[in-house]
Amino acid sequence: MKAYTLTHLHQLPELTDLEMPTVKDDLALIQLTASALNHRDIWITKGLYPNIMLGAVMGADGCGMLNGQEYIINPGLAWGRNESFQSPEFRVLGVPDDGTFADFISIDRTYLYPKPDHLTSVQAAALPLAGVTAFRAIIKRAQLKTGEKVLISGIGGGVALMAMQYAIALGCEVFVTSGSDLKIAEAISLGAKAGYIYHDPDWPKKLLSDAGGVDVIIDGACGAGFNQLVKVCLPGARISFYGGTAGKIEGLNPQLIFWRQISILGSTMGSDADFKDMIDFVDKYRIVPVIDSILPFEAIPDGFKKLMSGEQFGKIVFQH
Amino acid sequence: MKAYTLTHLHQLPELTDLEMPTVKDDLALIQLTASALNHRDIWITKGLYPNIMLGAVMGADGCGMLNGQEYIINPGLAWGRNESFQSPEFRVLGVPDDGTFADFISIDRTYLYPKPDHLTSVQAAALPLAGVTAFRAIIKRAQLKTGEKVLISGIGGGVALMAMQYAIALGCEVFVTSGSDLKIAEAISLGAKAGYIYHDPDWPKKLLSDAGGVDVIIDGACGAGFNQLVKVCLPGARISFYGGTAGKIEGLNPQLIFWRQISILGSTMGSDADFKDMIDFVDKYRIVPVIDSILPFEAIPDGFKKLMSGEQFGKIVFQH
Repeated sequence: MKAYTLTHLHQLPELTDLEMPTVKDDLALIQLTASALNHRDIWITKGLYPNIMLGAVMGADGCGMLNGQEYIINPGLAWGRNESFQSPEFRVLGVPDDGTFADFISIDRTYLYPKPDHLTSVQAAALPLAGVTAFRAIIKRAQLKTGEKVLISGIGGGVALMAMQYAIALGCEVFVTSGSDLKIAEAISLGAKAGYIYHDPDWPKKLLSDAGGVDVIIDGACGAGFNQLVKVCLPGARISFYGGTAGKIEGLNPQLIFWRQISILGSTMGSDADFKDMIDFVDKYRIVPVIDSILPFEAIPDGFKKLMSGEQFGKIVFQH
Repeated sequence: MKAYTLTHLHQLPELTDLEMPTVKDDLALIQLTASALNHRDIWITKGLYPNIMLGAVMGADGCGMLNGQEYIINPGLAWGRNESFQSPEFRVLGVPDDGTFADFISIDRTYLYPKPDHLTSVQAAALPLAGVTAFRAIIKRAQLKTGEKVLISGIGGGVALMAMQYAIALGCEVFVTSGSDLKIAEAISLGAKAGYIYHDPDWPKKLLSDAGGVDVIIDGACGAGFNQLVKVCLPGARISFYGGTAGKIEGLNPQLIFWRQISILGSTMGSDADFKDMIDFVDKYRIVPVIDSILPFEAIPDGFKKLMSGEQFGKIVFQH
């Protein structure tokens, strides 16, 4: 079969001819119909993950066929028994385990969920990693409630967009930040109330003026800008973050946090229950992931280049 | 009646002859039998709170008699309807509202709770502010469960000691930090498993070696040492903090927090429901607040001096 494997670090994955995966015990052989790209895939090519195995098939997100039924694959393997945190055996599909950038994948049936009817193959493939990460962060960890005010930082990334869509589905007022006016305009066209350029030091004042503050914040950056997130919190607010691309949090004022009963919640990926609940939520609210571009399987390396440019708005997906 | 009032900033409170408080509507006239000191009282004399009113009676903690029954006073006034955070009208008893360092206090009956039978008057007076602050921080916010491992930083302060006692009552293993070997020894005599001098940069390694990490941390300091608290967290850990005496949190590594699904929870005081649940918990587990010293009413200024020295272990209480 054809597959994109990690042959060398600091290079794009290479199209490789591999033997068909072996299937035994509870494993099912899935013929992949679509897959999608994540920042994780880029970081793996840069050697920025532990347990990187050269020669493994890349790709965490995918959906495919088994006996005439199409399934979404949960890429969170071996979460373990505790809903509060993943086990030491936890890992994400696609290096070191063979992933979704291939014709076929052999995977335990417990990771297969029937594709909701309202989604096409490529839309379904866009869902898994970003969908479950956003769901745990905003629904399970931050316990978002209908009618609350929400800020999503760095709109345009997969997790940020999914979190925005969940919040809009729940009838929340959503505000966003971005480095790009274009991305803010696109978020507003999808239902966001307003957006702010995060390079503008006055954005918190503008948000406070527009919204009076927010109940829930979803962030993937941290860094020095984290203090501005605290400034726009209403009493009882929850800040849930799933990444730290802007680095360490500096100069955090404890009085602003404890006096206003704020919660700062670290969140990563999601449990099997989170994944199932996410699929049910997406099904119930007929949520369609935002897709930046649909490329053919053979253009997977071009997808990597596009994601590295940082110009995407939504997921980059591959039609197999 | 006799009362200690705030006559000038940057001075100890002065014994003053006041008219008896007026009583009307739902207010009850309580004859105070005991009161207790908090750091808040010191900070008020230094002008470090908003809405300081010269001439007001000081003191947040107290218990007293009404119609032959002894009551503990909830010092958290006007919390409001939302359990998650206090209303803008919320304030703590004792400046600007007349407080407990007096012969009598006039207070709304909703703030009165029958004194548990196992406590003396001075023990009951030691409970309110520290008791409810610790209860909300460790039980309501951090959701401490039986058998978990707990770290209490800065043992010796009222809130830290109450949190330790709640955790021991629930059958948790409790570890402490302090700047003083003596305070660590006292905590161990009360049931703590082990303690560490927080000036020792290797204390996290020692705790990890002894306990393998902790599920819940209660902190009132924050500052640069906060990173060491994160280091000793087990996956899914909750750090609940009620103060920031060591200043801003610097250099917080987001990866350590989100990957381990850690929650950082600001907490202050407690709601009416928190206070009632705290009294019920103290009653159920027959918890007796740790008392550093019992002074006569006339020695209230000496109590201030002792608390300013930082050498106390437990509450400084006044027998009226």
